[in-house]
Amino acid sequence: MTKIKFDIKEEEDWNVLLFELDGPLVPDDLKSINPPRLKGTKGVVLSGRGPIWLYGFLVHHYHPTKFLAIFDPRIDGGIIIESHAPDYQVGEVLKIEEGPE
Amino acid sequence: MTKIKFDIKEEEDWNVLLFELDGPLVPDDLKSINPPRLKGTKGVVLSGRGPIWLYGFLVHHYHPTKFLAIFDPRIDGGIIIESHAPDYQVGEVLKIEEGPE
Repeated sequence: MTKIKFDIKEEEDWNVLLFELDGPLVPDDLKSINPPRLKGTKGVVLSGRGPIWLYGFLVHHYHPTKFLAIFDPRIDGGIIIESHAPDYQVGEVLKIEEGPE
Repeated sequence: MTKIKFDIKEEEDWNVLLFELDGPLVPDDLKSINPPRLKGTKGVVLSGRGPIWLYGFLVHHYHPTKFLAIFDPRIDGGIIIESHAPDYQVGEVLKIEEGPE
């Protein structure tokens, strides 16, 4: 019952965490999702199609990392939503080379 | 340029934070959004239509509260995505009386 698959694209200053669901997620699935370990010294960019509460769960999970961004295909970039680093500001858009296909 | 309006419905053990946008949000707007102060001893349930990165921003903002849930109209409940309280578990669904109309 691997409903979620994670893929990591490592960039110089952040990791892009791509996720893919192989079926609809139910809230109870959050109990068994184990997001991959990522370096806290780099930022994390979340990317994938899934419910907003899956994103909320992942945002909470990765909040100790350098900064956190969410890829938005309509904007074609990663929007920084939190940052512990002065050179990455909330509201900035990161150009993501390795977006989802 | 009040693009976002917040409304709070106080329940016994959590606050429902409803937000409403009066126009499309751009990433830069995150710099000026000031979410209302809510009691940390209660949970927070986020509810509203907006981009996933607005939710990410709000999840980060309220993460010190007792627990955090996101209302999903398809599930008709608030899905707990993080919790500091043993009686509220990640993946549980809260029945929200005061959902958006």
